[in-house]
Amino acid sequence: MSDTATRKRSRGTGGGAARRAERTAVRIEAARYIERNIPNFEILNEEALEIIEANAETLLEEVGVVFSENPAALDRWREVGADVQGDRVRMPKGLARKLCQTAPGSFTQHARNPERSVEIGGRNLILAPVYGPPFVRDREGGRRYATIDDFRNFVRLGYMSKWLHHSGGTVCEPTDIAVNKRHFDMLLAHMTLSDKPFMGSVTEPSRAQDSVDMCKILFGDAFATENTVMTSLINVNSPLTFDATMMGALEVYAENMQACIVSPFIVGGAMAPVTVAGTLTQVLAEVMTGVAYSQMIRPGAPVIGGAFVTSIDMNSGAPTFGTPEASLITYGAGQLMRRLGLPYRSAGSFTGSKLPDAQAAYETSNSLNMGLLSGVNFMLHACGWLEGGLVASMEKFVMDADQLGVLHTIAKGVDMSEAGQAMDALREVGPGGHFLGCAHTQAHFKDAFWRSQLFDYKPFETWSEEGGRDTARLAEIRVEKLLNDYQQPGLDPDIAGRLEDYVAGRKSEMPDAFS
Amino acid sequence: MSDTATRKRSRGTGGGAARRAERTAVRIEAARYIERNIPNFEILNEEALEIIEANAETLLEEVGVVFSENPAALDRWREVGADVQGDRVRMPKGLARKLCQTAPGSFTQHARNPERSVEIGGRNLILAPVYGPPFVRDREGGRRYATIDDFRNFVRLGYMSKWLHHSGGTVCEPTDIAVNKRHFDMLLAHMTLSDKPFMGSVTEPSRAQDSVDMCKILFGDAFATENTVMTSLINVNSPLTFDATMMGALEVYAENMQACIVSPFIVGGAMAPVTVAGTLTQVLAEVMTGVAYSQMIRPGAPVIGGAFVTSIDMNSGAPTFGTPEASLITYGAGQLMRRLGLPYRSAGSFTGSKLPDAQAAYETSNSLNMGLLSGVNFMLHACGWLEGGLVASMEKFVMDADQLGVLHTIAKGVDMSEAGQAMDALREVGPGGHFLGCAHTQAHFKDAFWRSQLFDYKPFETWSEEGGRDTARLAEIRVEKLLNDYQQPGLDPDIAGRLEDYVAGRKSEMPDAFS
Repeated sequence: MSDTATRKRSRGTGGGAARRAERTAVRIEAARYIERNIPNFEILNEEALEIIEANAETLLEEVGVVFSENPAALDRWREVGADVQGDRVRMPKGLARKLCQTAPGSFTQHARNPERSVEIGGRNLILAPVYGPPFVRDREGGRRYATIDDFRNFVRLGYMSKWLHHSGGTVCEPTDIAVNKRHFDMLLAHMTLSDKPFMGSVTEPSRAQDSVDMCKILFGDAFATENTVMTSLINVNSPLTFDATMMGALEVYAENMQACIVSPFIVGGAMAPVTVAGTLTQVLAEVMTGVAYSQMIRPGAPVIGGAFVTSIDMNSGAPTFGTPEASLITYGAGQLMRRLGLPYRSAGSFTGSKLPDAQAAYETSNSLNMGLLSGVNFMLHACGWLEGGLVASMEKFVMDADQLGVLHTIAKGVDMSEAGQAMDALREVGPGGHFLGCAHTQAHFKDAFWRSQLFDYKPFETWSEEGGRDTARLAEIRVEKLLNDYQQPGLDPDIAGRLEDYVAGRKSEMPDAFS
Repeated sequence: MSDTATRKRSRGTGGGAARRAERTAVRIEAARYIERNIPNFEILNEEALEIIEANAETLLEEVGVVFSENPAALDRWREVGADVQGDRVRMPKGLARKLCQTAPGSFTQHARNPERSVEIGGRNLILAPVYGPPFVRDREGGRRYATIDDFRNFVRLGYMSKWLHHSGGTVCEPTDIAVNKRHFDMLLAHMTLSDKPFMGSVTEPSRAQDSVDMCKILFGDAFATENTVMTSLINVNSPLTFDATMMGALEVYAENMQACIVSPFIVGGAMAPVTVAGTLTQVLAEVMTGVAYSQMIRPGAPVIGGAFVTSIDMNSGAPTFGTPEASLITYGAGQLMRRLGLPYRSAGSFTGSKLPDAQAAYETSNSLNMGLLSGVNFMLHACGWLEGGLVASMEKFVMDADQLGVLHTIAKGVDMSEAGQAMDALREVGPGGHFLGCAHTQAHFKDAFWRSQLFDYKPFETWSEEGGRDTARLAEIRVEKLLNDYQQPGLDPDIAGRLEDYVAGRKSEMPDAFS
């Protein structure tokens, strides 16, 4: 396909392994990010949008938001004309929306391999992997606490995944490393094991600064100062609370022109009302507040309006995923973000299932499809999520990553060229004929249909003879193959050495901390 | 929910079983068909639509269609002004579209229980189960040829499925009954084991007549003559061929004001060009031809424009399902059918997987979601399909049937009432608060969120203690429960007796035939 950059690599290892490798030279395929040629699905009419926008303004004016333990933030809000009482910030109608106007509608996040740089915003969709799980699961090892080895394997899988444009951030929590030092090893993995764009640390302002400093080594001081080389995840403590840790990280990133996703984290019924319109109102108020704040730090700082929304099982209190209410909110939030002129983050490979089974796939597919059609520009968690985000699954990672190819093809829309219209084929074949042999089919069949690299398309008999494997087993085999085939992308040894030295030096300055 | 009719029934069996049943009185819930309150997703712009429509007219004029072994049909085409050479029918531009104008945009298919009658067309979506598989699969028995016992169990499952509006037709092929007698037992099962609407036989014109005659017994002569009580599936032999068997069945149904789905059956690359626009052109030409023909039989006869489309794996030649090309065609065909003023049939629980696993769920979910958003009015195969339609799966039937609830909720759209806006909740809770206890949540939580009746929402520990079951195992349990809870809906014993007599009499008139 024309939007796929294909490179051949030969393995660097010696002896028999090298000769075997030569015979099966690994093709690293990486699709360009999605540029939609299809409309967005718009579920709210103009009247509904205006009601929600007016309600969000009312909420910010009457109820306001809290910026906790952050006197400097309160001073900034006072300066722009907000009413600040204690840590409560109330804004005159229109203030937050006006402050959002300096945020760019689209920005480039640079990767160290320029072919992998992504343009976030507009009609584009960037796909990034799962973020945050403390556990991992694979078929062989079951469910267990994640380690840095698991982390590195997820980064390798992401690098090998054709339809994934971004290496992500905390693909799992490396729980075998002290909390205050994890970010060094995570960043080092993204920087050295992949050449796709990545995310920075947000768990402390100082860790955000470490992320910036490491980027200066990787990209060069001047480049990293002038350009956006990280997109990081700033969750809002919904409802309506902006804590000092997250805002501190946002301050560091915005000052350095690094991108932030300002993202309400909402389990509907707990952190927001049980209704779609009520949740949308809160999401809009929270995003406008966070984005406005980023622009108060540095006008023009790149920022993404996010919506992480799910519903709750009112029987058990468990969050539920891939649900219809989440779809409605995701569609609606997309419309609201576009009217704000902001890139939009939402959707992902969400599921509450414990296993990469049918429940996981139904729920994930519901969310991926709505993500594409709702105009999402940055889809975090696009593959690998399991068990409500507690688990990063190796098998589900490659299952979901394969399905992301479906989104690429739908996004292309319908080819209305002469070849697309295929009137010559229709004339040639006629009633009762067969298209397989006709000239048009011969000319176009190779890239006519998207094909899974994972699913079983074999006849029943062949499938049975091969053991009657289900998708999870096929995925296990694919994980093994991808990790076997993986070859580290080249990096200037001087830069690699300086990154290692920086990490070793910074780690030696601090005792281990586990919170 | 307000759109759900709930009835309590007590079991009719005696003794201890009856007492147990009293304690767990079965609630039979049946949702009303979907009336969309959301827009359709329109993937083609006006220019693309006009190109495809013009190309379809060109195809009918230049290439034409074949009505094989059907001299009466050729005479009818001559009479309306077509150019007939041998069995090839070529139409002047505009003729087919003009003839389609008498077909109703919407019609009622009556069920013997009036609460179950459905309105097919407009913004509605009717969901019907899998159609046609010669094999069945369940976890206990594996994959095997289907029997009439399996058939009856699928009808019972359909009756018990809240989100299924229609009992369907050949839910599986009862291969233990002679081919020329199967339709009697299938119809008898739909008529007596369920009170939802159903489909008639199309494998011979005489079997269509048997279907009409049995409906006259079930509904009464006058009612069945004046009203539509069956919707039956007329596949087109794509490309561009209308065989005498299918057309003969259509003739019987149209004459009797019974509804037909005129549905091209297309594996892209084999029965149609490898491109989306080319396939849409052929689909439109074939649907216009079949619908026009139905109106030549009886103007005003109810008819549905269909599109069964899938792509092909160019490596193995196997048809593939839930693919992005199928999504694009389904969206586009919906637009074309609406411009023709016809109800639209497409999408379903399509998958090529051999098992009800993750592949099955991804592919199915892709198709169900696109079916909802593409404006489908009648979704055959909405649950239970496996292995490219060769297999009807008990477990997948209940898995898919559960997911159909998602479509119902998305279709409702966003509640913009005062309660929906939830400003009182937002004001009451404020920053850092919790919505679970607020008055608005208490008032609305019970029906705020859709909830699966099948999926696992439990904490990991509980789930583990209960055996770590996957979706297929949970579905097996649900199948067993639904079949255990099933109670036959009441039917006038006189009508039941006359149906039995009719079937016995007709069967005795004919020797068994196995083709």
